[in-house]
Amino acid sequence: MFITFEGIDGSGKSTQARLLSEALRAAGHDTVLTREPGGSPGAEEIRRLVLEGDPDRWSAETELLLFTAARRDHLERTIDPALSAGKIVICDRFADSTRMYQGLSRGDLRATVDKLHAMMIGREPDLTFLIDIDAATGLGRAKGRQGSEERFEDFGLELQEKMRAGFLALAREFSARFRVVEGDRASEAIAADVLAIAQSALAEAAA
Amino acid sequence: MFITFEGIDGSGKSTQARLLSEALRAAGHDTVLTREPGGSPGAEEIRRLVLEGDPDRWSAETELLLFTAARRDHLERTIDPALSAGKIVICDRFADSTRMYQGLSRGDLRATVDKLHAMMIGREPDLTFLIDIDAATGLGRAKGRQGSEERFEDFGLELQEKMRAGFLALAREFSARFRVVEGDRASEAIAADVLAIAQSALAEAAA
Repeated sequence: MFITFEGIDGSGKSTQARLLSEALRAAGHDTVLTREPGGSPGAEEIRRLVLEGDPDRWSAETELLLFTAARRDHLERTIDPALSAGKIVICDRFADSTRMYQGLSRGDLRATVDKLHAMMIGREPDLTFLIDIDAATGLGRAKGRQGSEERFEDFGLELQEKMRAGFLALAREFSARFRVVEGDRASEAIAADVLAIAQSALAEAAA
Repeated sequence: MFITFEGIDGSGKSTQARLLSEALRAAGHDTVLTREPGGSPGAEEIRRLVLEGDPDRWSAETELLLFTAARRDHLERTIDPALSAGKIVICDRFADSTRMYQGLSRGDLRATVDKLHAMMIGREPDLTFLIDIDAATGLGRAKGRQGSEERFEDFGLELQEKMRAGFLALAREFSARFRVVEGDRASEAIAADVLAIAQSALAEAAA
């Protein structure tokens, strides 16, 4: 089973991905926790190429191609081998983030994003958690931890709100695999909901 | 006018691209001499990512995406601005090399290469010189200058012959813009033929 976490910056999705991986491992499952952009040695090199340096040095189209190259490598080297070995793969961001960031915020490229995904990636998650949080809260958290990769944190409140609405629209578009989880709560409470949903999906897949 | 040079390794196409650029400049034209992969600061970084290190660290599909990202950047930052300014752009390798290397030798990806090109690049040269040379001669020359970027030189005679035949087939497929020039001659003789063809094409374009 391939599980992804999506949400705006500061939503807590990385924490939730880690907590789910730990809880499923504690329950006896073999899990692989990974992230995008990155997740394989080659993809991490592409991540550095895109996220470090001047945010405007790549156009939205070039960035889309670089992220798709990273995703292809991540898929070939990390995700597909783990799924073939029967493991549960938990990924912090996947193609839905590209649909939002390259498709909506950095350019009006959604149709191109979808065509490129169908051609070069193909795979969709079995289950996607959208950790939904107030845009201002997310922005405040993200600003508090700014490092060298400030690309996605550097957008301001208006864009955070547009992104939040965009993720919610994506959850309606792919309602079969998306589960929206309220993120303005203690992380333990969120993690308990996420775990219950994941275990129910695993039981259903095993049935 | 956008002029490209193609051919197998050791064909002398880089020399001919430079000689044509110098000859046209001496004749009063404003020329930009560039190359692929690379040709813009970002694309040169992608070039290093792909060509240095273990040749097998990227799949043919990932490599295709990385080269397309590099080409998109090169097009946006170098080729299109120069063409818009009325300059003659002369490029050592372009999309035809991808049709050959990613489409034929490193994977059976020609249909994917063409779709990706139509979607993300679009531009074709106005004139393409194929410097055609005996495969063994080309291989011998390429081996004599091996450096840190040995990706395309590391293929052996059988593949060089397949590539030569592939480039000739490409010249037939795109016969309107391809000119095949015999490369087993002194570089001055080749350069004279190339210049005559280019000047004739420039005169035709101006008419």
